[in-house]
Amino acid sequence: MRVLGIDPGLTRCGTGVVEGTVGRPLSLVDVSVIRTSSDLAVPDRLVTIEAGIEARLDDYRPDAVAIERIFARSDVSTIMGTAQAAGVAMVCAARRGLPIALHTPSEVKAAVSGNGRADKTQVGAMVTRILRLEATPKPADAADALALAITHIWRGGAQARIDAALAAAAGRRGHR
Amino acid sequence: MRVLGIDPGLTRCGTGVVEGTVGRPLSLVDVSVIRTSSDLAVPDRLVTIEAGIEARLDDYRPDAVAIERIFARSDVSTIMGTAQAAGVAMVCAARRGLPIALHTPSEVKAAVSGNGRADKTQVGAMVTRILRLEATPKPADAADALALAITHIWRGGAQARIDAALAAAAGRRGHR
Repeated sequence: MRVLGIDPGLTRCGTGVVEGTVGRPLSLVDVSVIRTSSDLAVPDRLVTIEAGIEARLDDYRPDAVAIERIFARSDVSTIMGTAQAAGVAMVCAARRGLPIALHTPSEVKAAVSGNGRADKTQVGAMVTRILRLEATPKPADAADALALAITHIWRGGAQARIDAALAAAAGRRGHR
Repeated sequence: MRVLGIDPGLTRCGTGVVEGTVGRPLSLVDVSVIRTSSDLAVPDRLVTIEAGIEARLDDYRPDAVAIERIFARSDVSTIMGTAQAAGVAMVCAARRGLPIALHTPSEVKAAVSGNGRADKTQVGAMVTRILRLEATPKPADAADALALAITHIWRGGAQARIDAALAAAAGRRGHR
């Protein structure tokens, strides 16, 4: 499966496309950052982000989109812009009928590094290793977007196996 | 001028269209609410809100859009959805190149009632009086959307007069 990961932000919105399945090496398809100037009004910045996400959906045709889940308790000054960028990303994916999953930063850190409290450097290093890259993607928003896509494939795969096992168990019960 | 006011929200997004200019009676063009079910996923709710706002922009062709400014300090559980609905409203208007203004709840209350701490009932009563309606628009989100549109016309008009006075003063200085 091919997943577009999005680390939403108004100044820097990281995007990363990863392809693969659980149990096999994953591969990098694309990694980039949509940047918007703080000189622009917020609505214009959101329109630029929308256009950037649409372009990536057109170019890479992902099977699913994974977006970082934003919490209201993150009381930094940028939280509203981040929430709005995430909302725009959701709308872009939902308009196309693509499956959307929201993963928390802790879930992503735990998935790629085994530690829900890993720092940016550790996440970047693990993304580099998992995708067999020569250098860590910069800025951190780009690496985080790839980590989201990796998390989605691995969690999705695990969930698919659980679903299959439950379906098989239900099937066995049905045949008794 | 014709203004679309939007009181953003995920469950109820109020919209109101008001037409008029400062110093003359304003008139109601439309008032309604876009509702989305909490049974739906957030991305699908945002797509429904986008479609609703697009329909109102198509139907009423406003000259400007006024949206309630959301603050991160409003630490209620619905704040993220509200911020995202506001973001979607901004994108809809900005894509069309429409002027967008954000007004705080205090600014709106002060503009329509003269009291920045007016309650919902007072705002509803003033909207009803200003637009010479027979009944107060319900729910409060609908009345708030109209109050936003009224505020925009009144503040815009005042700003236009200030700009004109400054331009005239500059012109007089220029002719000395």
